[in-house]
Amino acid sequence: MSADVGRVGIVGAGQVGTMLGLALRGASGVEDVLVSDRDEATARASSELGAGELADVDETLRADAIVLALPVPEIVRFLEDRAKELRDGSLVVDTGSVKRPVVQVMRDVVPEGVHAMGGHPMAGTERPGPAGARPELLRDAAFVLTPARQDPEALSRARALVEAAGARPVEMDAALHDRVVARTSHLPHVVAAAVALVAENEPQRAVRDLAAGGYAGTTRLAASDPEMVAGFITANADEVVDALRELRDALEAAEGFVDEGNGSLREFLEDAGRARAEVLG
Amino acid sequence: MSADVGRVGIVGAGQVGTMLGLALRGASGVEDVLVSDRDEATARASSELGAGELADVDETLRADAIVLALPVPEIVRFLEDRAKELRDGSLVVDTGSVKRPVVQVMRDVVPEGVHAMGGHPMAGTERPGPAGARPELLRDAAFVLTPARQDPEALSRARALVEAAGARPVEMDAALHDRVVARTSHLPHVVAAAVALVAENEPQRAVRDLAAGGYAGTTRLAASDPEMVAGFITANADEVVDALRELRDALEAAEGFVDEGNGSLREFLEDAGRARAEVLG
Repeated sequence: MSADVGRVGIVGAGQVGTMLGLALRGASGVEDVLVSDRDEATARASSELGAGELADVDETLRADAIVLALPVPEIVRFLEDRAKELRDGSLVVDTGSVKRPVVQVMRDVVPEGVHAMGGHPMAGTERPGPAGARPELLRDAAFVLTPARQDPEALSRARALVEAAGARPVEMDAALHDRVVARTSHLPHVVAAAVALVAENEPQRAVRDLAAGGYAGTTRLAASDPEMVAGFITANADEVVDALRELRDALEAAEGFVDEGNGSLREFLEDAGRARAEVLG
Repeated sequence: MSADVGRVGIVGAGQVGTMLGLALRGASGVEDVLVSDRDEATARASSELGAGELADVDETLRADAIVLALPVPEIVRFLEDRAKELRDGSLVVDTGSVKRPVVQVMRDVVPEGVHAMGGHPMAGTERPGPAGARPELLRDAAFVLTPARQDPEALSRARALVEAAGARPVEMDAALHDRVVARTSHLPHVVAAAVALVAENEPQRAVRDLAAGGYAGTTRLAASDPEMVAGFITANADEVVDALRELRDALEAAEGFVDEGNGSLREFLEDAGRARAEVLG
């Protein structure tokens, strides 16, 4: 039965792995959930929060559905090292925020009898580790699925897994995913950091007094784990560089509008507000 | 008694004026609060929310402490038109987010017998109008006071007003205020708009599916009232242009780090995270 998820093995018990374990455990069609992490304390903390039964990585690889909840560079390395150990008929899905390198390595190294699918849940927090997991964020969130090869069973089983977690499966080409996510997520991370660094050059006492909700919100992503962010940005470098150039062009246009005065600047701001409202509905 | 606020007259019953009225009404040292607006429905809505007694502008100008809670260009125009009607011995404070033009016009047109003080409460929401007022945001928020002239009584009475509203008076030079606020507030507004416009060029269905908390948070300020934002940015144009140039330089550096790969990008992100944490404490 393709709608049955069976036993889930989660590799990587950080924020995302723990969030998925918490959302999947006890869900219809899910037999049980195993959680593992190369750092045992992390796996234990995740299991104690209720994400699943504590397991070692070997055990999780024998599950029916294996979820690789690791940073993008580690997903690639993990598949290169261990894809040959995956059982025939099992499903392997990842949660990385860049999809071209993952589906490429899936095509290259995952055995033909294994169903492979790129995945990216659009839910999470800035807080790393099991304690940052908020499974309620998955509820109705998009969970992008980027097929690695022509494999309808991979798609139907990945959809069942996503739906069991309460999220909304969205099939998308990996290249389109990476292009858009460079602009909706990776670019905002770089921008948040750049704004924080521009303000750092001013007298800090005045900055502290004047930094209100606008500063806090715009720089919020700068509180993310730098290692993780550098990992996904580097894995999506070509698209992030293009996005940065587009942004600098937009900022140069804005600078002209500021110089020209009220009218054209107001139009620029109105267009942006309309664009945002259309995206967020 | 300089610690007594007396009767407060609020000119401009939008979000900020309503917030201040709600915070000041019934506070110790505050006799009563009058609210007025050139738009009568706005003044009525504000008064009905509890911000103060409905009044016309003439009445509010006869109060002991007059608060000009208007957009920056309107504050300047209002003072040019009506400063001569202010009573000797009264206090006039504004709430505009750019201070050089306001203190300049105060110096130029407010009669010597009137105590004039530039002000900027670092609290508010994106929601315009009386319904957007959240007086609890004033609690312990910085309320910047930028002296217009050598006038100790203006300062002590403005401090008393700010403290009655539950906020924290912070004395600051108008030029330093404008320089820093260009980077902590006005720049984030332009950046939020630019990020929304970069994402607008991608297939909108994919953008909607992939836009998560990062997009929503980074573009949040693009939901502000374009007229108001264009007003304060235009009033602070020289500093905003400088800030935009600094930001484009930081983004150009970031682009280099993305090209070089993980190490230098991670350092850039770490520096930014540290800068932000130092500001927000």
